[in-house]
Amino acid sequence: MAYDLWYWPTLPGRGEFVRLALEAAQIPYKDRAREVEDGFSAIPQHLDAMDTRHAFAVPLLETGSESIAQTPNILLFLAQEHGLGPKDAAGIRYLNQLQCDIADMVEEVHAVHHPISTSLYYEDQKDAAKLAAKHFREERIPKYLSHFERVASAHDGDWLLSGEDWSTGDTSIAYLLDGLHFMFPKRMNALAPEYPRLHSIRDQIFALDAIAAYRSSDRCASFGTEGIFRNYPELDAG
Amino acid sequence: MAYDLWYWPTLPGRGEFVRLALEAAQIPYKDRAREVEDGFSAIPQHLDAMDTRHAFAVPLLETGSESIAQTPNILLFLAQEHGLGPKDAAGIRYLNQLQCDIADMVEEVHAVHHPISTSLYYEDQKDAAKLAAKHFREERIPKYLSHFERVASAHDGDWLLSGEDWSTGDTSIAYLLDGLHFMFPKRMNALAPEYPRLHSIRDQIFALDAIAAYRSSDRCASFGTEGIFRNYPELDAG
Repeated sequence: MAYDLWYWPTLPGRGEFVRLALEAAQIPYKDRAREVEDGFSAIPQHLDAMDTRHAFAVPLLETGSESIAQTPNILLFLAQEHGLGPKDAAGIRYLNQLQCDIADMVEEVHAVHHPISTSLYYEDQKDAAKLAAKHFREERIPKYLSHFERVASAHDGDWLLSGEDWSTGDTSIAYLLDGLHFMFPKRMNALAPEYPRLHSIRDQIFALDAIAAYRSSDRCASFGTEGIFRNYPELDAG
Repeated sequence: MAYDLWYWPTLPGRGEFVRLALEAAQIPYKDRAREVEDGFSAIPQHLDAMDTRHAFAVPLLETGSESIAQTPNILLFLAQEHGLGPKDAAGIRYLNQLQCDIADMVEEVHAVHHPISTSLYYEDQKDAAKLAAKHFREERIPKYLSHFERVASAHDGDWLLSGEDWSTGDTSIAYLLDGLHFMFPKRMNALAPEYPRLHSIRDQIFALDAIAAYRSSDRCASFGTEGIFRNYPELDAG
């Protein structure tokens, strides 16, 4: 049986962490909000109609018997259910910890272009966004990426964690780097030589047959000026 | 053997979610950064010296064989290891989902007084903070608390999830409400009648013998103008 994924239909956003893991592992799923005429209305209606285990927001993955929300929580489920991570409990916990770190960084990325409120337009908080972007580029990007590079460099393997196979941590790192390069091309080009392991992980994930096919399909939404990673040139600098 | 907890010594902050769960369940732990002269230097030194499974930030719980960071990840471990949550996998996942929701709200609380950057003083981003606080008070507090109230109202029990006993979800809700009342007393007093189940959970957790003893001990740090929940009167309104 295919999973039901609920996420905003036209943007990669947080849902892309889930889509990439599903696509890389070739796990069947339906992208439900893309199957209706107005997916942007269907999502709040779907959330509002949940009678038990209410979810605060999408992404939401439904298995038939269970509704699972929160990106790290969905990825933990997929890692455990489909073997997309370490086999031991301590290893799975560490993978979950890194997914929480990535989720925190993504939250901060969104706050760069919406420092005052998510409910105001970017144009109405542009001055604050410029200041926030400077601090994010100069302090937060190196702090987070050094941490992930250190994790990937702590062993001899090719992936984020030791082991032969990619995990959901690698699909998440690939998407995170892709988004950061889209949003901050000057800054990320300047920083790239400092994070060779992370860039190699991104390249290896994107070279997987299943991911190459996904990225050239119409299932894969492009970055734009919606969602988490947005390219506003005035927020970037080398 | 007692766990080692690493968290900033003088403030409740994110560490309080972990301390409250440990104290409520009477699980022995050492608050390591309080045992040295300069805990604020000891924490970055400790993180920097980790040779495997590097942690991005505290809180960090060490078991002797494992170092576990990220608040939801630590609370998931404690729930599973000490039976502080549902016994079934789907129930534990839902508890983890709610802890991620709480962590997201806490991130937004911190961003209210630091909208531009965590590395600037509050005084240097006060104007942006006032705007951020207005949106947070009017839109985000009701949105999050309605969600948690709905979860607690979906069954007949006394706690956040159905069942006889409190879970880590209840200790987290108790601390979250306590912090919000400290930071936004006017706004929270105005809103309190809309969230009776959440306030009842807070009261029941604070009435547990172990928590009453903890809160009157010197192990429990007070709120102030450090950490997540800070009372700046100019950021509050009814």
